[in-house]
Amino acid sequence: MKNKAITSRDVDFAKWYDDVIKAAKLATYSSVKGCVVIEPNGYAIWENIQRALDDMFKETGHRNMYLPVFIPESLLNREKEHVEGFAPEVAWVTHGGSKELEERMCVRPTSETLFCEYYANAITSYRDLPMLYNQWCNVVRWEKETRPFLRSREFLWQEGHTMHETAQDAEEETLRMLNIYKKLFEDYLAIPVIVGKKTEKEKFAGAEYTYTVEALMHNGVALQSGTSHYFGQKFTKAFDVKFTNRNNELEYAYQTSWGVSTRMIGGLIMVHSDDNGLVLPPRIAPRQVVIVPIGSDENVLAKANELMQALKEKGIRVYIDNSEKSPGFKFAEHETNGIPVRIEVGPKDLEAGQLVLARRDTREKMTVASNIDIAAYVLELLDTIHNDMFAAAKARRDAQTYTATNMKEVEEIMTNHPGFVKAMWCGDEECELKMKEIRGTKSRCIPFENEQEHISDTCVCCGKPAKTMVVWGIQY
Amino acid sequence: MKNKAITSRDVDFAKWYDDVIKAAKLATYSSVKGCVVIEPNGYAIWENIQRALDDMFKETGHRNMYLPVFIPESLLNREKEHVEGFAPEVAWVTHGGSKELEERMCVRPTSETLFCEYYANAITSYRDLPMLYNQWCNVVRWEKETRPFLRSREFLWQEGHTMHETAQDAEEETLRMLNIYKKLFEDYLAIPVIVGKKTEKEKFAGAEYTYTVEALMHNGVALQSGTSHYFGQKFTKAFDVKFTNRNNELEYAYQTSWGVSTRMIGGLIMVHSDDNGLVLPPRIAPRQVVIVPIGSDENVLAKANELMQALKEKGIRVYIDNSEKSPGFKFAEHETNGIPVRIEVGPKDLEAGQLVLARRDTREKMTVASNIDIAAYVLELLDTIHNDMFAAAKARRDAQTYTATNMKEVEEIMTNHPGFVKAMWCGDEECELKMKEIRGTKSRCIPFENEQEHISDTCVCCGKPAKTMVVWGIQY
Repeated sequence: MKNKAITSRDVDFAKWYDDVIKAAKLATYSSVKGCVVIEPNGYAIWENIQRALDDMFKETGHRNMYLPVFIPESLLNREKEHVEGFAPEVAWVTHGGSKELEERMCVRPTSETLFCEYYANAITSYRDLPMLYNQWCNVVRWEKETRPFLRSREFLWQEGHTMHETAQDAEEETLRMLNIYKKLFEDYLAIPVIVGKKTEKEKFAGAEYTYTVEALMHNGVALQSGTSHYFGQKFTKAFDVKFTNRNNELEYAYQTSWGVSTRMIGGLIMVHSDDNGLVLPPRIAPRQVVIVPIGSDENVLAKANELMQALKEKGIRVYIDNSEKSPGFKFAEHETNGIPVRIEVGPKDLEAGQLVLARRDTREKMTVASNIDIAAYVLELLDTIHNDMFAAAKARRDAQTYTATNMKEVEEIMTNHPGFVKAMWCGDEECELKMKEIRGTKSRCIPFENEQEHISDTCVCCGKPAKTMVVWGIQY
Repeated sequence: MKNKAITSRDVDFAKWYDDVIKAAKLATYSSVKGCVVIEPNGYAIWENIQRALDDMFKETGHRNMYLPVFIPESLLNREKEHVEGFAPEVAWVTHGGSKELEERMCVRPTSETLFCEYYANAITSYRDLPMLYNQWCNVVRWEKETRPFLRSREFLWQEGHTMHETAQDAEEETLRMLNIYKKLFEDYLAIPVIVGKKTEKEKFAGAEYTYTVEALMHNGVALQSGTSHYFGQKFTKAFDVKFTNRNNELEYAYQTSWGVSTRMIGGLIMVHSDDNGLVLPPRIAPRQVVIVPIGSDENVLAKANELMQALKEKGIRVYIDNSEKSPGFKFAEHETNGIPVRIEVGPKDLEAGQLVLARRDTREKMTVASNIDIAAYVLELLDTIHNDMFAAAKARRDAQTYTATNMKEVEEIMTNHPGFVKAMWCGDEECELKMKEIRGTKSRCIPFENEQEHISDTCVCCGKPAKTMVVWGIQY
């Protein structure tokens, strides 16, 4: 039985995506063009992602702070590459009340400039380092084409900005945070990712280099899902962030920044969901289990309550659906909303001493004895669902990952069944530009050495000797 | 021993306030005029306040969501009183990238308009009600004079916006949230508050009426610390938020909104702190206990670790200060930062089988046997500190609360020793305007009936028959 409000994923992927968001009430539109309203069902997912990430940040010694939402134009202009990258896509505030401002300010598209200004005053000596701060906030980028969660003029994110005594410390931090993102994707979102370095062309405006976490959506389109940047001393020179080092000399600090955003919610949908609606990985699902009493028999209601208490005690996010709708209607609604586990409590089942459980991911139904240790059973089931969802996503991603040795092969793949393409590259930007002519194919990343494979000796594009393997893809 | 970086509170209250913020590293300035950078020590307080409040919101059935940071001018203009109240103090975005916008948008000063637009689409039937949503976000108001935390062009807050089936439901909600704020102030921030209704002149732009939580600072100046508004159908008529009621008729919904902000952190400082720096109430103190090992004796360090483990296990926020500074320097630093309890572990004390504890609020030192159940002892001590801080703040507030029956008395009080003044009022706005001539004295609130006292028969200002008692004060 298909959800009629949802276009089939295979018929029209873009429409399917919008339909899932609408049916599960994750987000909607307002009169503010290019921005979305994140509805309670969507925001609760973000809250769980925040909590998981924030815990990992704090475990690794990071603290949160908050900087202004505005950046004066002169401050944005201090680092040349940075302003060139961001100025074309910022929103400008020109008036405060009825007065024109002496200097216009942009709404932050990212906060490297403000953090550098802050650090310039906060850091004196090597004893002050490292400084490991993060900010949860909204940012604005004036995009032309927008999609809910994936690309929006305003989005929510975290941006970590750290300062270090040595290049090595900063480079280790860049990698540490990349690994935290990888852990978030794999252990919480059940999304397999490829990690590696961005090419010069694709790196963050002003960074020395950028690491990235890349995921593949159900339709074979890639999603850049998180980035971690090493800046060396580029910004600290522009912003005069100096400290007295152990040799009593003034030295510019070494910097990193890293961020993930509400875009991840779009990734979650496009990796896991299906024609019946949202499918949520259990560890970030706002509601993990719904209990549905069938009928209003007293024993049924008592059993439902007993189950809820048992699950709650073990920290499972559970609720009872006591609404007046029919069981069939409720089941469909819980499926649309992506509740990972449904427990049905009916009078006949109770008489037979059993309960019926249903998994959202596989839509499999299981009958269990009604007197088992239900909390232990459900905890294990939630882990199983997580693992199965990850394995399914990984199998699909691997099946959609190809190799190519020439442009004809790339074109065949990207035209007929897009996905990740592993291919060799000479290191020349011109070849990246040529790849882009094939449906906008871009380098996703240069995977780390242990993930490098030797596909051929020559560049997939120009045929000259290859330097490295690159993963390519069409992107959101 | 006084902290030399902090001006004495009795000498220059405003300078003292700024010095405490600077010394405890709660906030600092940037090149963005009128906005502050909330530093990690300040932001951690906000995170604890958020958690306490958010838990209470969720317990009472509220959910979080997120609406755009921008409001199109035409949307802001939909409710007349509202736009008149806010338009003079908003920041306007006029350009996106290099293009001028067709319609300028303000950065939200508050989100009634966007919530109404959202609710107009989300609500169909009485079955959808109540809708109880809240938003944690940044807002911007283009203030001319600013003070860190108290009045800033950008601040962080929560804004709850709810829709109800009946006026009674909405009015109950308005009161419910006021009581949650009262609980936050008393049970977490250890700040006594007066609650009541704002006069017509002082209510929120567009509300039917406004409830408020009013606190008194150490210098006798009042701080409006939280407000809860009842809108009736004023906005829902302007924004066409209708539902089908139980009689199958279309009806406009009944609305509330309520908010508290980072301003509370300013209140915390001005109520509790002293010439040695910050004093934090234990329940929202980011670090509740610091353990200071004296010297580097192995037994001392082992004991310090043992104590930390014991406290951590009971959920106490504790850390060891192992830095290379001298004990005296460390003690002063922890006092400046407002850590509620310090535990000293020294070799001589250990030999004597004892530990020394120091309270930040009273600066009292206590010696206890080193083998007591330290976690139980500290948990009780933290509660005692909370209660004592509340009692001290209440005693001071009560001592600074006066009655007056004529303008001469009001002038004498506000000139020589400002505080809350209880005085009768005829209900006429002209009298409020006259009161304002005395150092800006404003009506803080009309306390609820059970807090009403009969001070005299006639209005403190015009001498005509009085209608009600009002609490007056000079405000931040």
